[in-house]
Amino acid sequence: MDRVEALGVIRSKRQEKKMTFQALGQAVGRNPVYVAAALNGQQRLGPEEAGKLAKALGLTPEVAEAVSAFPVRTDFPITTDPFKYRLMEIVGVYGDSLRDMANEMFGDGIMSAIDFTMDMEKVTGAQGEARVKITMNGKWLPYKEF
Amino acid sequence: MDRVEALGVIRSKRQEKKMTFQALGQAVGRNPVYVAAALNGQQRLGPEEAGKLAKALGLTPEVAEAVSAFPVRTDFPITTDPFKYRLMEIVGVYGDSLRDMANEMFGDGIMSAIDFTMDMEKVTGAQGEARVKITMNGKWLPYKEF
Amino acid sequence: MDRVEALGVIRSKRQEKKMTFQALGQAVGRNPVYVAAALNGQQRLGPEEAGKLAKALGLTPEVAEAVSAFPVRTDFPITTDPFKYRLMEIVGVYGDSLRDMANEMFGDGIMSAIDFTMDMEKVTGAQGEARVKITMNGKWLPYKEF
Amino acid sequence: MDRVEALGVIRSKRQEKKMTFQALGQAVGRNPVYVAAALNGQQRLGPEEAGKLAKALGLTPEVAEAVSAFPVRTDFPITTDPFKYRLMEIVGVYGDSLRDMANEMFGDGIMSAIDFTMDMEKVTGAQGEARVKITMNGKWLPYKEF
Amino acid sequence: MDRVEALGVIRSKRQEKKMTFQALGQAVGRNPVYVAAALNGQQRLGPEEAGKLAKALGLTPEVAEAVSAFPVRTDFPITTDPFKYRLMEIVGVYGDSLRDMANEMFGDGIMSAIDFTMDMEKVTGAQGEARVKITMNGKWLPYKEF
Amino acid sequence: MDRVEALGVIRSKRQEKKMTFQALGQAVGRNPVYVAAALNGQQRLGPEEAGKLAKALGLTPEVAEAVSAFPVRTDFPITTDPFKYRLMEIVGVYGDSLRDMANEMFGDGIMSAIDFTMDMEKVTGAQGEARVKITMNGKWLPYKEF
Amino acid sequence: MDRVEALGVIRSKRQEKKMTFQALGQAVGRNPVYVAAALNGQQRLGPEEAGKLAKALGLTPEVAEAVSAFPVRTDFPITTDPFKYRLMEIVGVYGDSLRDMANEMFGDGIMSAIDFTMDMEKVTGAQGEARVKITMNGKWLPYKEF
Amino acid sequence: MDRVEALGVIRSKRQEKKMTFQALGQAVGRNPVYVAAALNGQQRLGPEEAGKLAKALGLTPEVAEAVSAFPVRTDFPITTDPFKYRLMEIVGVYGDSLRDMANEMFGDGIMSAIDFTMDMEKVTGAQGEARVKITMNGKWLPYKEF
Amino acid sequence: MDRVEALGVIRSKRQEKKMTFQALGQAVGRNPVYVAAALNGQQRLGPEEAGKLAKALGLTPEVAEAVSAFPVRTDFPITTDPFKYRLMEIVGVYGDSLRDMANEMFGDGIMSAIDFTMDMEKVTGAQGEARVKITMNGKWLPYKEF
Amino acid sequence: MDRVEALGVIRSKRQEKKMTFQALGQAVGRNPVYVAAALNGQQRLGPEEAGKLAKALGLTPEVAEAVSAFPVRTDFPITTDPFKYRLMEIVGVYGDSLRDMANEMFGDGIMSAIDFTMDMEKVTGAQGEARVKITMNGKWLPYKEF
Repeated sequence: MDRVEALGVIRSKRQEKKMTFQALGQAVGRNPVYVAAALNGQQRLGPEEAGKLAKALGLTPEVAEAVSAFPVRTDFPITTDPFKYRLMEIVGVYGDSLRDMANEMFGDGIMSAIDFTMDMEKVTGAQGEARVKITMNGKWLPYKEF
Repeated sequence: MDRVEALGVIRSKRQEKKMTFQALGQAVGRNPVYVAAALNGQQRLGPEEAGKLAKALGLTPEVAEAVSAFPVRTDFPITTDPFKYRLMEIVGVYGDSLRDMANEMFGDGIMSAIDFTMDMEKVTGAQGEARVKITMNGKWLPYKEF
Repeated sequence: MDRVEALGVIRSKRQEKKMTFQALGQAVGRNPVYVAAALNGQQRLGPEEAGKLAKALGLTPEVAEAVSAFPVRTDFPITTDPFKYRLMEIVGVYGDSLRDMANEMFGDGIMSAIDFTMDMEKVTGAQGEARVKITMNGKWLPYKEF
Repeated sequence: MDRVEALGVIRSKRQEKKMTFQALGQAVGRNPVYVAAALNGQQRLGPEEAGKLAKALGLTPEVAEAVSAFPVRTDFPITTDPFKYRLMEIVGVYGDSLRDMANEMFGDGIMSAIDFTMDMEKVTGAQGEARVKITMNGKWLPYKEF
Repeated sequence: MDRVEALGVIRSKRQEKKMTFQALGQAVGRNPVYVAAALNGQQRLGPEEAGKLAKALGLTPEVAEAVSAFPVRTDFPITTDPFKYRLMEIVGVYGDSLRDMANEMFGDGIMSAIDFTMDMEKVTGAQGEARVKITMNGKWLPYKEF
Repeated sequence: MDRVEALGVIRSKRQEKKMTFQALGQAVGRNPVYVAAALNGQQRLGPEEAGKLAKALGLTPEVAEAVSAFPVRTDFPITTDPFKYRLMEIVGVYGDSLRDMANEMFGDGIMSAIDFTMDMEKVTGAQGEARVKITMNGKWLPYKEF
Repeated sequence: MDRVEALGVIRSKRQEKKMTFQALGQAVGRNPVYVAAALNGQQRLGPEEAGKLAKALGLTPEVAEAVSAFPVRTDFPITTDPFKYRLMEIVGVYGDSLRDMANEMFGDGIMSAIDFTMDMEKVTGAQGEARVKITMNGKWLPYKEF
Repeated sequence: MDRVEALGVIRSKRQEKKMTFQALGQAVGRNPVYVAAALNGQQRLGPEEAGKLAKALGLTPEVAEAVSAFPVRTDFPITTDPFKYRLMEIVGVYGDSLRDMANEMFGDGIMSAIDFTMDMEKVTGAQGEARVKITMNGKWLPYKEF
Repeated sequence: MDRVEALGVIRSKRQEKKMTFQALGQAVGRNPVYVAAALNGQQRLGPEEAGKLAKALGLTPEVAEAVSAFPVRTDFPITTDPFKYRLMEIVGVYGDSLRDMANEMFGDGIMSAIDFTMDMEKVTGAQGEARVKITMNGKWLPYKEF
Repeated sequence: MDRVEALGVIRSKRQEKKMTFQALGQAVGRNPVYVAAALNGQQRLGPEEAGKLAKALGLTPEVAEAVSAFPVRTDFPITTDPFKYRLMEIVGVYGDSLRDMANEMFGDGIMSAIDFTMDMEKVTGAQGEARVKITMNGKWLPYKEF
């Protein structure tokens, strides 16, 4: 069974058991965003965590192993999926301003997308409306001079 | 004088006066990210705020007026600028997982990129390293059924 | 059975039963455009509505369930289908003018494509010719200042 | 003076005189969307209408003439402008469904984007929220069999 | 059997029976270009014409029905097929000139690609060489003023 | 004065003198489509024809010379100009069928876009409607076997 | 068996029999480049030549027939295959110069890619190094004036 | 004076003096294709050759120097210029076959586009027609194993 | 069994046997980067080396043969895989500078990507951090003058 | 004077003074690749280094200041420049193999393109041929688990 197939089985199991990412995150001992990324094949779990996942969802060892393989991340960000597009539009509208701010705060460099964590929360706005709060936290990498 | 030119003058003035976005944000009474966006032509300031900006940077009224015009936002997110690309790569790597999480938390819909605010902070990591913390906060918009 | 397959079965059933979207809309209790979108996998029906659909078309419960899953909307709008291209050309020809009008009427912001409904009617023109009338109705979202 | 330049002058005059498209539409005797399209170089006014426009905005005859030239419409619909993108996303999400509906109502063919009119209104929604209503009205063109 | 498959069967039958499009056009009662378009899934035949096609090629009713379905035309014109590319190059080389001519002859508008017929003939040139003559005939659609 | 500039002068002169392409074609002794192509820089006139053009429009010799230079044809056919797009859509919808027909009539090869002429006429349809008739006539080039 | 499959069988047979294109060219009575093109589905062999090919490689008649069908050439030249890319780079680096030369030698027109032959040889350079010599020979097609 | 400008002056001088590339090649002591490439900024002449070019065309030393600078070759091969497109189509139609042939003759590798020469000749075909003969000669570079 | 399939089998065998590229390189007698390239179908091994590979991994002769076929290298470098993208970004950021340096050191030309070797090592940086050291070594190819 | 212009002046001065990047690197106290990158606007020099550069090349303070501004790196890596393309092709041919090697050596992660240095040397190969040696040295960044 190849990786894509195994991940499909895992995602089906999760829906069948109606187990949320929140619950799965607790069962595995990781942030739910990270677990969701592992189930989408974008991050990996260590063997021990894969075992906890297998237990939580009732997976065969062979299937569980798939989440420990090295990911090949090729999901291209040019997308017409409305949810993901809004995130890209934010990069378009605010990207230059964030770089200006970062230059001011840190100098020349980038925020790492690798030494990086992410959280998503549901919060309530001033009008009582539901709002999404996404927090990104990445190491600052200054351009090396040589 | 057209808008692009006027915004160029304003940005030059800021560098000449060595005034940070933090300081400018306080002078104008807005978040520094928002002020940086206005100086990049992606957001606008009201007439009163434009007046405060003019005072802080020593701008002529004609120049200051440029930040009050309606923005035409056409900065395309496909970019090779390393700072902005890292943000787009995050959408590629984590985008599906965030939608999965959002479906779980909110149902079918998107996080608004319009009724939306953003913050950037400098924080210190567990190894004492400098880290960038970006917080996004957008209204949840459920797909309307009709 | 995966979602794409199940939606294919539902569409075949509709053609077999020669049931129009108008009739299906009434059976389900929703606008026919919305029902057509659900059958194309772009919107979803609630469990109760899915039940009505199943009854109207004689679907098995497993098949009917497919229309309740969260849609992943990735149909890219760059298209050479002549019907859809005409709609895109309209955005090209009139898009800037609509934004100008909207700026005049509402200020800076967008018409939501999420809190949004749509209707299609057949009307008769001044020369007695058949005409298509499409009505879009979306919430106005002002750009948030922060 | 070339056409692009002349249209720029006309748009500046309109802003200077703070004359809305609504008012300009009445002065010229055309729908304000159509007038906005003419000022963006996407449609043309007849000589008489151009005269009314000149009078309303105080234009020289040479400038006014520019709105009567044949338009060359090359504004490409692939756009990252958030306002126009929402319209294109609607084509992506609902386009196939509209074609299905049109096939049901009219047979095989398209809605003309040429023998076509368009309106934009401000309406109030059920929650008292401001909403945009866009009405499109295009001649139905059946595919000719030969 | 889906539409693509059925059209494949029909095209195979035609080659097996060595029946030309000319002959098929006569059998069906339509222009051979139109019949070829129907066999490529770009146009449709009415039920009666489909019956004649079935008789001429010895098709089962189920297969013959496929040519009556509504076409979804998504063959993208950007092509490296040398035959089709020459036609596109002609649009590139002569397109602006044809629009200039059309503006002179008809005013502002387009030639319809829907209310449109097409013929292809073999003719002999002044040097006795074989030449292709393609005649396009489309309704003129003036841009509607509103 | 470079070529682009000179061609701009010539086109302005034509509009100023309100001389149609029909009239210009007669004055020069060539098909009006060909003359329009020369004025768009896609074809060239011989020195004698350039002289006739100069006389008809009152051009200086230097300007007239520009239409005799070798054209560099780089107008890309991917276009959103509605007039030209309709022509490209025809290639998309009918291209495969035309190649099938051509294979039947001529064997394997292409219609030349170089040894090629083109005409545009205004004709009247069965409902009395104005129609555009475009005739293409290109040498057949069989693929050489070697 | 469809064409792609049949051509795959023929290419496998050639490798199995370790028969070079040189030898195959002699057996069929055509240039080896042409034969290689036929085996890649880009050119076709006549029935007699197909018979010789069948004999040389031990093919069934059904398989041999595939090389006589009309090719549909859709191999797009934008490629990252290093061998083919070098050829395209040559067009980029020398293309304008070749057109300048051709204009000087022949006037306005192109070298046909249809009435065209091609040869590849192995030659030895001045330093004794192996070199590739590719000879292209195409009919000159002058732009027709009309 | 920058390089692009200087090359423009040189090309104008050549046309003014009606000096062919053949003659220029002789004057400079290089292949005319190479000289044409130098005048298009794709190759460079040594100081001595630049001197001969200056003498032949009556250039100032400053202008002549421009042909000795290191070229930056960025002319993208995706083109709609009909002359260059035919060359690219040849790569599309025959590229795989040439690689197959080259693998047979030389093993795994490429023909260099750098250690490479090129010739263009006018020849006469079997029907007395003018033909273009282009000869490419490039060093064979075998893939290095390591 | 086709090549892609056979290479898949070989890569699975390697993971199953937990044999590193380092070990495999020694077993085969080649650089591990080269062996990894062969297992990805981008380079080939000679028959003898293929035999050593078969022995090391326990492959059938048929499977082992696949690594000796001529590669068709079509893996397009435009990628969103984060690991490969960083390498491409380096070309974007430093490419012009490397060419400037090369022009200074060698004159006009390129570094060959064919007569080319590559190494990857793990080294330790000044802060004790793990670092990747990639060494490229390619023949210099001067542009040939002719 | 804007940054692009100032950098142009600096590069001209370098050529005028015939000062190599090697010499400039020594004068400034940095690697010549880094200095070349700064002169191409892709890296920046500190104020002190900028002073040394000014002294070495005889620049005014205003011009020298331009190399200290924060770079906006937007040079897109899709290129047809033959020198840079070879580097990109190497990513295409060896990229997957390098990731496989890196996964083996380091686990899941990337080589940083920011905490990164680069060297270029001229070396002599086994046949006495000139070779380019490029050494890349980047920090390893493991994907953070969270």
